[in-house]
Amino acid sequence: MLFRLESDSIGEKQVPKSAYYGVQTLRAAENFKITGLTIHPQFIIALAEVKKAAAITNMSARVLEERIGNAIIEACDEIIAGNLHEYFITDPIQGGAGTSMNMNANEVIANRATEILGGEKGDYIVHPNDHVNMGQSTNDVIPTSGKITTGKLLNTALEKLEQLYEALQSKAKEFDCVVKMGRTQMQDAVPIRLGQEFNAYSRAIKRDICRIKTTLPNLLSVNMGGTAVGTGINADERYVENIALELREVTGLDITQAEDLVDGTQNLDCYVEVSAALKTCAVNLSKMANDFRLLSSGPRCGFGEINLPSKQNGSSIMPGKVNPVIPEVVSQVAFNVIGNDMTITMAAEAGQLELNAFEPVVFYKLFQSIDTIKNGVDTFVKNCIKGITANDKRCKELVYNSVGIITAICPHVGYKKAAEIAKKAIKTDKAVTEIALEEGVLNKEEIDTILDVYGMTVPGISGKQLMKNKILKLA
Amino acid sequence: MLFRLESDSIGEKQVPKSAYYGVQTLRAAENFKITGLTIHPQFIIALAEVKKAAAITNMSARVLEERIGNAIIEACDEIIAGNLHEYFITDPIQGGAGTSMNMNANEVIANRATEILGGEKGDYIVHPNDHVNMGQSTNDVIPTSGKITTGKLLNTALEKLEQLYEALQSKAKEFDCVVKMGRTQMQDAVPIRLGQEFNAYSRAIKRDICRIKTTLPNLLSVNMGGTAVGTGINADERYVENIALELREVTGLDITQAEDLVDGTQNLDCYVEVSAALKTCAVNLSKMANDFRLLSSGPRCGFGEINLPSKQNGSSIMPGKVNPVIPEVVSQVAFNVIGNDMTITMAAEAGQLELNAFEPVVFYKLFQSIDTIKNGVDTFVKNCIKGITANDKRCKELVYNSVGIITAICPHVGYKKAAEIAKKAIKTDKAVTEIALEEGVLNKEEIDTILDVYGMTVPGISGKQLMKNKILKLA
Amino acid sequence: MLFRLESDSIGEKQVPKSAYYGVQTLRAAENFKITGLTIHPQFIIALAEVKKAAAITNMSARVLEERIGNAIIEACDEIIAGNLHEYFITDPIQGGAGTSMNMNANEVIANRATEILGGEKGDYIVHPNDHVNMGQSTNDVIPTSGKITTGKLLNTALEKLEQLYEALQSKAKEFDCVVKMGRTQMQDAVPIRLGQEFNAYSRAIKRDICRIKTTLPNLLSVNMGGTAVGTGINADERYVENIALELREVTGLDITQAEDLVDGTQNLDCYVEVSAALKTCAVNLSKMANDFRLLSSGPRCGFGEINLPSKQNGSSIMPGKVNPVIPEVVSQVAFNVIGNDMTITMAAEAGQLELNAFEPVVFYKLFQSIDTIKNGVDTFVKNCIKGITANDKRCKELVYNSVGIITAICPHVGYKKAAEIAKKAIKTDKAVTEIALEEGVLNKEEIDTILDVYGMTVPGISGKQLMKNKILKLA
Amino acid sequence: MLFRLESDSIGEKQVPKSAYYGVQTLRAAENFKITGLTIHPQFIIALAEVKKAAAITNMSARVLEERIGNAIIEACDEIIAGNLHEYFITDPIQGGAGTSMNMNANEVIANRATEILGGEKGDYIVHPNDHVNMGQSTNDVIPTSGKITTGKLLNTALEKLEQLYEALQSKAKEFDCVVKMGRTQMQDAVPIRLGQEFNAYSRAIKRDICRIKTTLPNLLSVNMGGTAVGTGINADERYVENIALELREVTGLDITQAEDLVDGTQNLDCYVEVSAALKTCAVNLSKMANDFRLLSSGPRCGFGEINLPSKQNGSSIMPGKVNPVIPEVVSQVAFNVIGNDMTITMAAEAGQLELNAFEPVVFYKLFQSIDTIKNGVDTFVKNCIKGITANDKRCKELVYNSVGIITAICPHVGYKKAAEIAKKAIKTDKAVTEIALEEGVLNKEEIDTILDVYGMTVPGISGKQLMKNKILKLA
Repeated sequence: MLFRLESDSIGEKQVPKSAYYGVQTLRAAENFKITGLTIHPQFIIALAEVKKAAAITNMSARVLEERIGNAIIEACDEIIAGNLHEYFITDPIQGGAGTSMNMNANEVIANRATEILGGEKGDYIVHPNDHVNMGQSTNDVIPTSGKITTGKLLNTALEKLEQLYEALQSKAKEFDCVVKMGRTQMQDAVPIRLGQEFNAYSRAIKRDICRIKTTLPNLLSVNMGGTAVGTGINADERYVENIALELREVTGLDITQAEDLVDGTQNLDCYVEVSAALKTCAVNLSKMANDFRLLSSGPRCGFGEINLPSKQNGSSIMPGKVNPVIPEVVSQVAFNVIGNDMTITMAAEAGQLELNAFEPVVFYKLFQSIDTIKNGVDTFVKNCIKGITANDKRCKELVYNSVGIITAICPHVGYKKAAEIAKKAIKTDKAVTEIALEEGVLNKEEIDTILDVYGMTVPGISGKQLMKNKILKLA
Repeated sequence: MLFRLESDSIGEKQVPKSAYYGVQTLRAAENFKITGLTIHPQFIIALAEVKKAAAITNMSARVLEERIGNAIIEACDEIIAGNLHEYFITDPIQGGAGTSMNMNANEVIANRATEILGGEKGDYIVHPNDHVNMGQSTNDVIPTSGKITTGKLLNTALEKLEQLYEALQSKAKEFDCVVKMGRTQMQDAVPIRLGQEFNAYSRAIKRDICRIKTTLPNLLSVNMGGTAVGTGINADERYVENIALELREVTGLDITQAEDLVDGTQNLDCYVEVSAALKTCAVNLSKMANDFRLLSSGPRCGFGEINLPSKQNGSSIMPGKVNPVIPEVVSQVAFNVIGNDMTITMAAEAGQLELNAFEPVVFYKLFQSIDTIKNGVDTFVKNCIKGITANDKRCKELVYNSVGIITAICPHVGYKKAAEIAKKAIKTDKAVTEIALEEGVLNKEEIDTILDVYGMTVPGISGKQLMKNKILKLA
Repeated sequence: MLFRLESDSIGEKQVPKSAYYGVQTLRAAENFKITGLTIHPQFIIALAEVKKAAAITNMSARVLEERIGNAIIEACDEIIAGNLHEYFITDPIQGGAGTSMNMNANEVIANRATEILGGEKGDYIVHPNDHVNMGQSTNDVIPTSGKITTGKLLNTALEKLEQLYEALQSKAKEFDCVVKMGRTQMQDAVPIRLGQEFNAYSRAIKRDICRIKTTLPNLLSVNMGGTAVGTGINADERYVENIALELREVTGLDITQAEDLVDGTQNLDCYVEVSAALKTCAVNLSKMANDFRLLSSGPRCGFGEINLPSKQNGSSIMPGKVNPVIPEVVSQVAFNVIGNDMTITMAAEAGQLELNAFEPVVFYKLFQSIDTIKNGVDTFVKNCIKGITANDKRCKELVYNSVGIITAICPHVGYKKAAEIAKKAIKTDKAVTEIALEEGVLNKEEIDTILDVYGMTVPGISGKQLMKNKILKLA
Repeated sequence: MLFRLESDSIGEKQVPKSAYYGVQTLRAAENFKITGLTIHPQFIIALAEVKKAAAITNMSARVLEERIGNAIIEACDEIIAGNLHEYFITDPIQGGAGTSMNMNANEVIANRATEILGGEKGDYIVHPNDHVNMGQSTNDVIPTSGKITTGKLLNTALEKLEQLYEALQSKAKEFDCVVKMGRTQMQDAVPIRLGQEFNAYSRAIKRDICRIKTTLPNLLSVNMGGTAVGTGINADERYVENIALELREVTGLDITQAEDLVDGTQNLDCYVEVSAALKTCAVNLSKMANDFRLLSSGPRCGFGEINLPSKQNGSSIMPGKVNPVIPEVVSQVAFNVIGNDMTITMAAEAGQLELNAFEPVVFYKLFQSIDTIKNGVDTFVKNCIKGITANDKRCKELVYNSVGIITAICPHVGYKKAAEIAKKAIKTDKAVTEIALEEGVLNKEEIDTILDVYGMTVPGISGKQLMKNKILKLA
C-alpha cells in the first residue's frame, strides 16, 4: 500500500495515500477498537450537514473565504449524498467526547475539498481545523450532530409506531364483537371483548407516540455557536447568531439554538429524556407482546383465544410447532432498549464540569434503541399483528363456562352470597348458574336477564331493572 | 387481648376487638411481611378520598342509601384528617395488585361507619364490599389512589425544585463576574464565569420541572368506573359518568377520567413516565453535586474554586476536615431514584392481560423516589447551595496561569502554530504569552488585546480587529 | 425539654439532656432527613461489635487505659443486647461515607461509658473520638460494620433459601409421576413430569445458595486497621495486627483482615458481588413465581395444572376469586432486588480515589435486598409452595389431546412427514394418532409402543426397537 | 440471480442457488431485521463444534450412518476453520429462542455435506433436521453453543485482565516511593503513596479475574442431550451419555453435562452470573479510569499528580490540549457492560416454563460485554497505563502544604486541639506546623519526629516514642 506522511502535535504518521481521513483519524482508529463497528451512517450525514451549515454561516459572516467555503460545501454534499462514508473509520465507542469523529469529518472534508480545489490529499489547502472546523468545537459539533441524527431516526421510528397504532385500531374494530374471558392476575375475571383489548394496546402506543414527540423541542435545541465550553470563544458573533437558523435550513428539522449554550454543552438530560420515552414505549410493546404469547398459547393446552400468523417453523425437533417468534423478538428489543437506557443514564450522570465526555456511548446506544424499536415494530406490524385472527368459538365457550360471570350477580345477592356460590361451583365443577338455581337464589328468568355476557363488557349493573328497592335489602 | 370472630371465603379468624380493620386485612398482614413498613400516609388519605368520592357519587346515582353513604363519608373524613392511620397495617410490597390495601380501607371505613351508625366493630351495618367498595374494584381504586398520591407528592417536590432553581439563579447572579478556568474532560480548557456554570445548572433544573409537570395529564387520568377490568361491570352508569368529576372536587387535583378505562386498568406506562422524569432530574442533580465536590476539592490539594458551607465535622479521625456531605447525599438520592426506576420499569413491563398485579411495588418505589428527591433537594438548597462562596482570587490565578487561554490566539496564528506554543509552554513550565512573545508570534500589544479573559467568556473572536485580511493569510 | 450544651468545630448546639447521642449526631440528623427511617438494627449492633473489638484490642496494645476500655465494652454490650437503639437517629441515606453513623455510635457509647464511670452525659470522661474511635476512622469502621451486618443478614436469608430448596425437592418427589404437557415459548411442546419441573426449580435455588456463599470470603475480608485511607495512620501496630482476629471472636463470623487495606478502603466491589448474587437469585425466584401463575391460571379458562393454596380473598368485586398473591409478591421482591442492584452498582462505580463516599446508600439497599428476599422466600415456602397440589387428571387430558406428542414419531417417519401429520391434526382438530393411522404411516401397535407418554419424559428414542435399519431408510 | 425452490411447513420459497443456507434461514432473515448485524463469528464456530460432536456421538451410538456423519463432520470442520461464515445471515436479536440460528447451521452444514457426498445444494442428501440436528433441539444446541462461545471469549478477556493486573502491579512498584496526598470525599486527607494506589487497583482487578473464573463451572455445564425440554426425548441414550464428553474433546473447554437437563434447558442464571461478574469488573474499571482522570487533571488547574501518555490531539479547537481519552473509553465500556447486564437480567427473568425464548438477546449482549471489556482493557493497558508517569515534585509539594498531616498530631494532642489548629491553619492560610509551634502545642523537635510523611503511609502512631504516659493524659 502507498502512504503519505502526516503529522500532528503527537508526531508523524503514515496515512494510506488513498485515504480521505488523516493522521488524527488514524490515531483514533488505533486507540479505540472497541466494538469493531463504525459510526451510524445517519450520524456521518449529520456531521456533514453541520459542517456545511458552518461553512455557509462563516462565509456570510465574512470570516471564511468563498473559495474555501464552497469547496467545503461541495465535499459535504457528497457525504450527505452517501459518498465517502467508508472513510469514517472511528469506533462508535470512543474516548474524547467525540473529538475523533469530529476530526474524522474535518479531515475527510478537508481532503476532499482540497481535491476539489485542485490539490492532493494531505495538502490541506482546506485545513481541517482552521477551515472545516472554523468557529466550532467538538463540544458543539458532536452534540449537535447527535441531536440531528436522533431527530431523523425518531421520525422514521414514529412512522412505524403510527402504523402500529393503525394496525391495532383496525384489529380493535375487527374484534369488537368477540366476547372473551378477561383475566386479572392470570385468573379468570369477567368478560371483555377482544376488540377492547386491542383498543387498549393502541391507546398505550398513542401515548408513546405523544411522549416521544414531546421530547423533540429539548432534543432539537442545539448548542452550535458555543464552541469549547458554551461561551462561544473563537466563534464570530454573526456566525453564532445565524448558525442554528442555517442548520434548520440544511437539515429540514425544527432546530433551535439553546438559550444557554453553556448548559447545552454540558448537560445530556435531553438524551436521557428521549431514551426514557423509548423505554416507556418498550414497556408497552413488551407487555403487549407477552399478552399475544399468552392469548395464542396452545394450540391445545393453552388459552388459544387468538392465532398468530405462522412465519417460520418453530422447532428443529418438534414438527408442526409454530412459535410466537415475532412477539418474542419484540420483547427482546424491549429488553435491549431498557438496558440501553441504563447505559445512557449512567453516561449522562457521569458528566463533569463543562462537558460530558461520554456522549459517544450515549449516541451509540440511543441510535440502536431507536433503530431496533423501529425495526421491531415494523416486523411486529407486518409479520404478526396484521395477520392475527380470533378463535371466536373458543372465546365464547370459555366465557360461558367460567365462574367469573358470578360478578354480575353480586349486586343482586351481595358479595358474600355470591362468593359462596362461586366456591361451590368450583368445588363441584358445576356452572355458577346451575348452583344459583339449585340454591333458589335467582330464578331462570333473572339469570337470563343478568347473565348477558356482552352487556357485562359495558358499564352498568346487569339486570338493574330487577333491583328495585334492592338497595335497602342489601343494607 | 380481646378478640372478635370474623369470617370470609377462606374461613374464620380472630380479629383484635379494638381493631378497625377486619379479617381480610389481617390475612394480608400475615401473608406479606416483606419490608416491615406500612403504606405511605398520603396513600391512606388518597384511599379515603376515593372512597368518599365513590360514596357521594353512588348516593347521587341513588344506588347507595343516604344513611350508609353519609356514615362512609364521615369515616373517610376522619382518615383524611389523619386519624385511624394506625389501622392500615399492610406492607407496601404485597401480592394481589393492592386488594389488601383496598380491603384494609374498606374494612376500616366500614367498621368506623358502623360505629357512627351506632353499631359495633364487626357488625358491618356498613359492609366493606357491598357499600364501601360499591361500584368499585381494587383494579380501579388502587391505580386511582396511587395516582392521587403521586400527584400530591409531586406537587411538594416541585415546590422544592422551584426553590432549587431560584437558589441557583441567585448564585448565578452573585458569581457572574467570577472568571475561572473551564474544564472539559477534567483538563483545563478555556475561561468561563462561575455565574455561567450556576446558570447552566439552573436551566437543567428548569427543564426537569417542566418535564415533571408534563407527566401530570397522563398521571391524573384515572380509571375509576372501570371496576374489575375496565369495562365498568357492576358500576352504575351515572356513577361511572360522575365519579372522576367528584374525585376532582374531593382531592383538588386536575383529575380526568381515562378515555379508555380498559387501557387505564392494565397499562402502567404513566408511572414509568413519571419515574423517568424523576430519573432525568436525578441525573442532573447528581452531575451538579459531583461538580460541587470537584470545584470545592481541597482545601489545598484540589481545585478549591468554591467553598461549600461546613455542616458537620467531616471525619472521626482527621481533625478540621469538612466534607461535601450534602452533595454526597444528593448523589445517593439520585442513585436511589435511578435504581427505583429500574424496579418500576420491570414491574410495569410484567403486567399481564387485563391487569398489572405489581402496582404495589411500583407505588412503594415511586413514592420513595419523589420523597427522597424532595428531601434531598431541600437539604441541598438550605444546607449547601445557599451558603456556597467563591474563591475569586484562586479562580483568577488559575486562569492567568493556564495554557488554555492559547485558544484565543488560535484564530490569529492558526491551530498548528498555537499547538506548538502550547506544547512548549507545558514543557518549559512557562506562560503561553511568554512563549508567544519569545517566538515573535505576537507582540505585547496584540497579546493584551487578545487575552482579555472576561472577553473570552462571551461569543466572538478575541482581538478580531487585529485580524484584517487574516482570512487570506490563514488560507 | 431540658438541654445540655455541646460544641464541635462547627460551633455550639443544644442537645436534649436525656439523649445519649451528642452534637455531631444531632447535626447529621438535621442535615439528612431523606427517607425518614433510621439505620438497620443489625447495623447498630455491628457498630457496637466493632467498637467493642477495637477497645479490647487497644487495651491489649496498651494504648487505651483499662478503666476507659472496660466502660466502652460494657456500653457496647448493652447495645449488642438491643438497648439504646433509639439513640441511633441518623437517616440510612446520608452524606459523608457514614461519618454520621460512626459518630452517632461513638457519642452514644461515650456517653453511656461516661455514665458507667460515674459521669453525666456530655461530660465525656470517655471521649467519642479519642477513646471510642481510637485507632479507627469512619473509613474502616463503616465498611467493616456494613460487612458484618451483611454477613449476618445473609446467614438468615440462606436458611430461608435452604427451606425453599427442601420444599421444592419435596414437591419434586410428590409430583414425580404427574405427566403433563411441557411448553416452550408458550406453545405445547412435549410431555414432561411436574416433578421434573419442581426439581429444576430446586436446582436453580441450589445454585443461588452456592453463589451467595461464594461471595462470603470477599465480603468478610475487612479493612479494620486501615483507618483514614487504608495506610493505618494513627493506629498502633499491635492493634492493626489483632483487630480482625478480635472481631472474629466478637462477631462469630469468619472475618479476615484484607491483605491490602488501601484496596479494602476504597473499593466496594464486594457489595456489588453480593448484590449480584442476590439479583441472580431474584431472577430465578421471579421466573418460578411467574411459572406458578401460569400453571395455576384458571380456574376454568387457563392451564389449570396446579392449584396454589388460597391465602386470602382475591378480589373486592369478583366473589370467589382467589389470586396467586404469594407468587406476585415474590416477583415484586425480585424487581425490588434488581432495582436495588442498580443503585448499588452506580454507588460503587462512583467512588473517587481513597474512598467511596456512597456506602450508606449501598448498605441501605443491600440490607433491604437481603431482608426482602428472606421475607419473600419465607412466605413463598410457607404460604404457597408447601400447599401446592397437582391437577393430575387435567394434566393427563392435555397431554393425550396434544399435538406435541408427534415429536416421538419423528425418528420413525422423519421430520417432514411428521410435520405434515401435525399440520393436518391442527387443521382438522383431530388427534395426531388418528391422522397417523388414517394415512397409514404407522399402525396401531406401533403407535401404542411409541406413544408412551411417561417414556417420553426420559432420554431415549421411543419405540426404538421398531427402528431396525431405520437409519438407512431415513437417509 | 439464480434461485432454487425449497419448501417447508409454511410453503415454498426461492433460495439463491449459490446459498448454503435454505428456506428456513431465509424466512428468519426476513422476519428479523433488527440490528442489521449477524451473529458472532465465535458463535458460528461453536454451532459447528456442537454439530460435529453430535455427529460423532450419534455415529458411535450407531444411530447415524457413517457416510452421512462423516460428511457432516467435514462440513463442520470447514466452518470451524472460518469458512462459510457469510451464509450465517440471521440477526443476533431474533425470536424463537435461536431456532433460526440453529436451522441456519443445520442448513449450511446439510448443504455443504450434501455437496461433499456429490449432491447439489438443496438435494439434502444430508438432511438439516433428521441428520444434522439428530438427537438435538434448538433448546439444547443454542444454550450449549452460547456457553461455548462465552467460555472462549472469556478466556481471551481473562488474558487481557491478567495483563492489566501485571501492568498495575508494575506501576505499583515503580511508584512505591511517591508520597502524595490521599483524598477522601474529594477533600485532602492524609498522605499515601502512589504505589499504594496502583496496588489497590491491581487487587480489585485480581478479584475480578477470580470472580469471572468462578463462574466457569456453572457456565460450562451444558444441557446437550436434553433436546426439546430437557427430558431427552428423541435422543439415543448412548448419545445422551456421551455427547458432553465429546464436546469437551471437540472444543477443548472444561465442559460437563448438567446434572439436571430440564433445569439446564429453562434457567439462564448462569449467564446472569457471568454478566454480573463482568459488571462488577466494569465497576472497578470505571472507578479506576475516573481516578486517572482526576489525578491527571490539569495540566495547571487540576491535581496534576500523574501524567497520562498523549495518544491523540484532545481538541479540535483548543491547541495543545491532551485529554484522558483512554480512561474515558474505559468508562464508556463500563457503562455499556452495566446496561447490557440489565438487558440480560430482564431477559433471563422473562423465561416461561420449559424454555427461555430470549436467549438470543442474552447472547448478543453478553458477547458484546465480553468483547468490549477485552478491547477496552487492551487499549487501557497499552495506550494508557504502561505510559503513566508520576509528577513526584508536585505530589511532594501538595503533601507538605496540606492541612491533612494534622492527623498525625492528633494522638499527641487529642482530636479537639488538633481540630482547632487545623481550623486556624485554613483560616490564616498558614502551615499547620507553624500554628502548632506558635500555639506552643508542640516544639520543633516533636514536629519533625511526628511529621514524617512516608511514615504516615504505614500503620502506626507517628512519633509514638514521644507519647509515654500520654494515654493517661488524654484520658
